[in-house]
Amino acid sequence: MVRVAVLGGGTVGSALVELLLTRSEELAVQSGARLEIAGIAVHDLSRPRPGHVPVELLTSDAAALAADPSVDIVVELIGGIEPASTLVTAALTAGKPVVTANKALLASQAGIGLRSLARRQGVDLLYEAAVAGAVPLVRVLRESLTGERIHRVMGIVNGTTNFILTRMAEQGADYAEVLSEAQSLGLAERDPTADVEGHDAAAKAAILAGVAFGYDVPVDQVACEGITAVRTLDVAFAQRSGFVVKLLAVVERVGDDEVSVRVHPAMVPTAHPLAGVRDAFNAVFIEGEAAGEVMLYGQGAGGIPTASAVLGDLIDATRNLAAGTTAPAPDRQPGRIFPPASLRTAFYLSIDVDDRPGVLAEVAAAFGEHHVSIRSLEQEDLEDSARLTLLTHTALEGDVAATVTALGALGPVRQVGGIMRVIGEAG
Amino acid sequence: MVRVAVLGGGTVGSALVELLLTRSEELAVQSGARLEIAGIAVHDLSRPRPGHVPVELLTSDAAALAADPSVDIVVELIGGIEPASTLVTAALTAGKPVVTANKALLASQAGIGLRSLARRQGVDLLYEAAVAGAVPLVRVLRESLTGERIHRVMGIVNGTTNFILTRMAEQGADYAEVLSEAQSLGLAERDPTADVEGHDAAAKAAILAGVAFGYDVPVDQVACEGITAVRTLDVAFAQRSGFVVKLLAVVERVGDDEVSVRVHPAMVPTAHPLAGVRDAFNAVFIEGEAAGEVMLYGQGAGGIPTASAVLGDLIDATRNLAAGTTAPAPDRQPGRIFPPASLRTAFYLSIDVDDRPGVLAEVAAAFGEHHVSIRSLEQEDLEDSARLTLLTHTALEGDVAATVTALGALGPVRQVGGIMRVIGEAG
Repeated sequence: MVRVAVLGGGTVGSALVELLLTRSEELAVQSGARLEIAGIAVHDLSRPRPGHVPVELLTSDAAALAADPSVDIVVELIGGIEPASTLVTAALTAGKPVVTANKALLASQAGIGLRSLARRQGVDLLYEAAVAGAVPLVRVLRESLTGERIHRVMGIVNGTTNFILTRMAEQGADYAEVLSEAQSLGLAERDPTADVEGHDAAAKAAILAGVAFGYDVPVDQVACEGITAVRTLDVAFAQRSGFVVKLLAVVERVGDDEVSVRVHPAMVPTAHPLAGVRDAFNAVFIEGEAAGEVMLYGQGAGGIPTASAVLGDLIDATRNLAAGTTAPAPDRQPGRIFPPASLRTAFYLSIDVDDRPGVLAEVAAAFGEHHVSIRSLEQEDLEDSARLTLLTHTALEGDVAATVTALGALGPVRQVGGIMRVIGEAG
Repeated sequence: MVRVAVLGGGTVGSALVELLLTRSEELAVQSGARLEIAGIAVHDLSRPRPGHVPVELLTSDAAALAADPSVDIVVELIGGIEPASTLVTAALTAGKPVVTANKALLASQAGIGLRSLARRQGVDLLYEAAVAGAVPLVRVLRESLTGERIHRVMGIVNGTTNFILTRMAEQGADYAEVLSEAQSLGLAERDPTADVEGHDAAAKAAILAGVAFGYDVPVDQVACEGITAVRTLDVAFAQRSGFVVKLLAVVERVGDDEVSVRVHPAMVPTAHPLAGVRDAFNAVFIEGEAAGEVMLYGQGAGGIPTASAVLGDLIDATRNLAAGTTAPAPDRQPGRIFPPASLRTAFYLSIDVDDRPGVLAEVAAAFGEHHVSIRSLEQEDLEDSARLTLLTHTALEGDVAATVTALGALGPVRQVGGIMRVIGEAG
């Protein structure tokens, strides 16, 4: 018998408790031990709980529950840095395996310390649910692709923004309209900042850098752009040019010992497997030297899918405990971040200009002066102005930024908008 | 140090040897042991080998190599039932973990015996590479989704047929034309029967039934239809109706203790994640109770991607050997196969008939008599006949088969063609 402390009684915690209670027979077969809930630590004992959460297991003292000597494994589903960090530290120090879905904690400096503590202690710290919910990403990178030289991992790891971008493309709706639809469906928070500004995806990118490359990258080192500047007209241009706009979390090896970790919207060719990932689904596309292209797709959020990922880790931890072993956790190194300005990328830009002769030449000159080569250009007449829509060839991101600054200083340029990276060729 | 016997020096064997030699430092870190090649058993010693295969390691005596007491792990890449079955039996009996990519063996009655032998011996028998090459399917089903109640697994597990169907759809080319293109590209064998008749996919479906549901299903119990009857006109109809034609391997739980295991072409809605799987890629779509929809995508064949999957298993076996443990291998039970005629499915049919009044009524009556309800119907005038293209509502497959038989006996019916299952709603 293995006794499990569940810290957190929210959506994921309640769903986990339900799975543990309703599947106890199968779980005993699969994990080789009977999983017993030692207790469920919640913030507010008086709050009503779903019927399947046994009231007698509730406690408001998470620290005492986790420290109970009869508890074998701790599942942390509280979220946030504190008190989660203190609780996980105590559990690992006591030699208890920890399963967590806490991306904020794992992506923080404290999280880097926790992974290192788990390694020193020889104790499992498992977090499949922290990156893309039910997408079995962490285990695949850690185990299936363990012999693999990974070049790049690109993921759609935020369901809210993918839902918004899908609706903007498929219904031609604008950002504010779809955001409020997402809010009314419960797919976006009332304050959507963490999702739409890319912070949630950035935390996941930081964790991915560790899982894919063994680099310790805290979230504040992730270059991050959200989707608030993406306009319906940019999405429509993408669509008629053979692309789909996606918010991507990218971790990429550059040279031998540097890694680029970033989050930004990008135009993805329609034939690319990531392009077909619709609505609130998540997917992660992995490029390895021998395995080639591998993609993993699934539900990125939601209590039950996330609890299902937690449960997979819990079974793993139970088996490892019985076998006296741990999941592989290779040594980490601090990540040397490749400077974003030195990346080479193709770009999309849309530039509103005065509609008069000579303007196109001025704009083209600004690109030329900064070594950015234009690959295609459309000119569209608006009421009293013109809109230039451009795709560039691959260029240094720093040069593109300098071009945008220079364009902003040109008299006839009214607005430079929708600046977006382009992945691959139109499909 | 762990000594590895490589049985088989073909495409996958040579690629594995190259990975083992060129990545030895990283592999030592990842597996916790130095992996040394004890020998490479080949059929014909005199055949020239790629430069990276060390000639001094070659032997023509696979049995002696595998039985060498200094060999810790045996990798079987010979393929086919014999001598592979005898060699794997001997290795497992001697307590040596075996990694294999041999789908024909694993899907046979002998393979069922080998899995049972491995369990009794407490020795790893790992076969990630046998189902969909570099797609990390077996480990995900065995470990990540271990706590999951799987309802259905649907896969595109044969790259050759997916390439052919992709070209038929995207170029409007006909089957024979694309098959010969695939042959000239090395994507199809000179005798393409195993691929195009679905036998290769059927072997993978049989293995999947074991991994997903713990059922022992030998390949001869898999209901199997290939793609040779799929015409360009069927593919074109699918396309204009919001579907894509795919050859699917399906394993599905029916009721509490029965499983349907089948291979057939099907119309898949374009919005379904499997619809975007193009060319020779493989993908497997898993429907679980808690995890929801999960899809895994990657290269299904090719020496290097397949060797990469073998390598992942080899590292697993090495770690398990050091920890004195094995990968989870729950008990199996013989599969109770659900009779295909009792499945409920929607169908597409195309019926060529004499172009005269009253024929449509006769055809409709045949459907009605067999309790098959027509959902949509198109009538097209050909030169001296008419073509009826139909989609049915969900019906018993046995009733649809009886309808087709009845249609064949109708005087004005010239041909019933392109009979194909339809998955879900048009996208």
